Amino acid sequence: MSNSFVGRKVCVRGWIYRRSVVGGKAFVRVRDSTGVIQVVVDKKKCGEDIVRTLKDIGLEASVKTCGELVKQPRAPGGYEIQADWFKVVGYSRDFPIKGGEGIDYLLDNRHLWIRSRKLTETMKIKHSVLRAGREYFIENGWWEVTPPILTASAVEGGATLFPVKYFDKTAYLSQSAQLYLEALIYSLEKVWSLTTSFRAEKSRTRRHLAEYWHLEAEAAWYNMEDMMRVAEELVAHIVQYVLEHNRRQLEILGRNLEILKNYVEPPYPRIRYDEAIEILQKKGVNIEWGDDLGADEERVLTMEFDKPFFITHFPKEIKSFYMKLDPENEKLALGFDLLAPEGYGEIIGGSEREDDYNKLLNRIIEQGYNPEDYKWYLDLRKYGSVPHSGFGLGIERLVMWIAGLDHIRDAIPFPRFRGRIYP
Amino acid sequence: MSNSFVGRKVCVRGWIYRRSVVGGKAFVRVRDSTGVIQVVVDKKKCGEDIVRTLKDIGLEASVKTCGELVKQPRAPGGYEIQADWFKVVGYSRDFPIKGGEGIDYLLDNRHLWIRSRKLTETMKIKHSVLRAGREYFIENGWWEVTPPILTASAVEGGATLFPVKYFDKTAYLSQSAQLYLEALIYSLEKVWSLTTSFRAEKSRTRRHLAEYWHLEAEAAWYNMEDMMRVAEELVAHIVQYVLEHNRRQLEILGRNLEILKNYVEPPYPRIRYDEAIEILQKKGVNIEWGDDLGADEERVLTMEFDKPFFITHFPKEIKSFYMKLDPENEKLALGFDLLAPEGYGEIIGGSEREDDYNKLLNRIIEQGYNPEDYKWYLDLRKYGSVPHSGFGLGIERLVMWIAGLDHIRDAIPFPRFRGRIYP
Repeated sequence: MSNSFVGRKVCVRGWIYRRSVVGGKAFVRVRDSTGVIQVVVDKKKCGEDIVRTLKDIGLEASVKTCGELVKQPRAPGGYEIQADWFKVVGYSRDFPIKGGEGIDYLLDNRHLWIRSRKLTETMKIKHSVLRAGREYFIENGWWEVTPPILTASAVEGGATLFPVKYFDKTAYLSQSAQLYLEALIYSLEKVWSLTTSFRAEKSRTRRHLAEYWHLEAEAAWYNMEDMMRVAEELVAHIVQYVLEHNRRQLEILGRNLEILKNYVEPPYPRIRYDEAIEILQKKGVNIEWGDDLGADEERVLTMEFDKPFFITHFPKEIKSFYMKLDPENEKLALGFDLLAPEGYGEIIGGSEREDDYNKLLNRIIEQGYNPEDYKWYLDLRKYGSVPHSGFGLGIERLVMWIAGLDHIRDAIPFPRFRGRIYP
Repeated sequence: MSNSFVGRKVCVRGWIYRRSVVGGKAFVRVRDSTGVIQVVVDKKKCGEDIVRTLKDIGLEASVKTCGELVKQPRAPGGYEIQADWFKVVGYSRDFPIKGGEGIDYLLDNRHLWIRSRKLTETMKIKHSVLRAGREYFIENGWWEVTPPILTASAVEGGATLFPVKYFDKTAYLSQSAQLYLEALIYSLEKVWSLTTSFRAEKSRTRRHLAEYWHLEAEAAWYNMEDMMRVAEELVAHIVQYVLEHNRRQLEILGRNLEILKNYVEPPYPRIRYDEAIEILQKKGVNIEWGDDLGADEERVLTMEFDKPFFITHFPKEIKSFYMKLDPENEKLALGFDLLAPEGYGEIIGGSEREDDYNKLLNRIIEQGYNPEDYKWYLDLRKYGSVPHSGFGLGIERLVMWIAGLDHIRDAIPFPRFRGRIYP
């Protein structure tokens, strides 16, 4: 509502968010997808019946009302509707969420909990994140493609695969569209996709989901540095877009806008894995060259930067077989991670891909996979192979960081993780 | 390439599409994601070695070249590059697709077949279809949401479900996001999602996939007619967008543009199921009131219309439990299908949803489901229920129709159907 409607008749439909009855007047706060407005229902204008009904009505009942919009400094938002008509559409008795419930109870009632302020505002931010991410690719000439979710083989090994009974065979849920995107660069050159990806993570952490949204990109003729530039421009564009379009949501969630503004200007700093290890050792972290960086190590590193930053050139043993090795030092893989600051850690993982048939075959064997499972993927190196690179961005991790959430489950309306499939 | 580049030095990277060597000159057609251009490689300028290499080189080798762009009426596109430098990046020997292969062989080599003209142009059309579809919702104030793929229960019964081993439980791949979108209208009112959906269809047909892209929408306060208007505006907007942006692709695929122009103006005609049965009976089709409309019946009906058209008010027995019954005749469900003309048939299915708790419970029991499996879905009718409607659009069916394909498998790069999981 705004000043231009003051003094005019307006109609609102929504759900009861708060209500109190004082004397012959009910003060009802009605929420809809745009916000909350106070409605005053006076028995003199709307009749005694409705005011009596409102005295006992449960929260979350759905209602329709019309009346004059007036300025009201004491009401939330500064306006109220003085109803001359008020109707209950759908009753509500004992709405199961009253406040103070434990997390498992709230997750069991997620289909109702998603009406909450926090989750609603977060979903609006996610809407912008998805929109801005796609916009970046479309406006820069990348083709959107639709890779499969049901696949015959794994990208990153079998431990975290979900098996599916697929007619008379077993298939697996995709962990990444990467291999398929690689096949598609031979006709479309620069491709991207937005799909769900699945990881059967056994541990429950604040930053893992079993099902998450994955924005992936792959480009022919791009080397690692080209691809890192795409990654940082993409993230900066998304943060900028959210700052422009979701200021209100960010404020409701208590996010510090000044900190976010720091993130809209690429380039982001780059350090090599070697340097990351040095930093960690100086900070007293017990880590050696060759160890993988876990959530704890990432958190320590993020404290050194006030922007997202890249870590590059990892030991090949801790990275996937498909990464190209550094021609200057074949112990290293040309991979990069982009870490979000403020303790959030990895949001993007990418690399230059091995484009030589024999080297790729060796890496597959070296890492203990069966080349037969990668037959078609190897083919891509037999018929006009090209240098190429790509990355994947975890949408919920990005939303978690931008919205300042402390748990990834709130970046998706119906989270999936070990033990959680309902609702 | 265009006139403004004529006489200037240009560089091109791509894959060899055709080549012939005459005397000391190689004529190489190089394709990239934008098209095909002829390159003349003269041994006087580029050396004898490269011309000898090009004599024996396999199709689909990747190359880089630079040279002067000249007008050449005999070359495809009207230009050619007179190379002064030409380099092979990735060789190719015996590219497995030479033309004339059978469909199963081509599907086994889908990772290479997707480089074909037909599939490449179709993917570009799909890119536009997805973009325009999302644009419609975003510009009309609908919120994008991310419903889950892994679910505990079925929307439309268990026969076509894919079971997934989900930690120590069994989950199912989503057939539709509808139930989750319904939960989300209580905070965001108008929501949409674009996800994969899965149906374990046992029969192989020209219009079914086991995995397909599903654009779904759901809105609070919308009745069936409101929702049909959204559906027809959406489809008209997408066709219009493709006509504006993909004329070249449509021409390459041999699509009749004049026919497509017929489809950009809503409203689309509406008939009731009763009328559809009458039309079919008059045409001599052996069908009775109460029978479902299959692909054959749909094909006959599409011949009566030169636009997409709606069929509404179906017998409740052939429609899902969640559809609201027609208050004027409770034998009928307030469901609608949108059928594409030219024999294509159903591309959208939608309905007004039952919003009364007791009626919904009865319908669940009547259709033989267990109310316990729909506990959270029933809850949505207990706490502030509202009238609402929604629909789902099958992206590949829409692409198939717009692009004029004769099989749905070509509307997706890696099709999934019974017997097909590789590559």
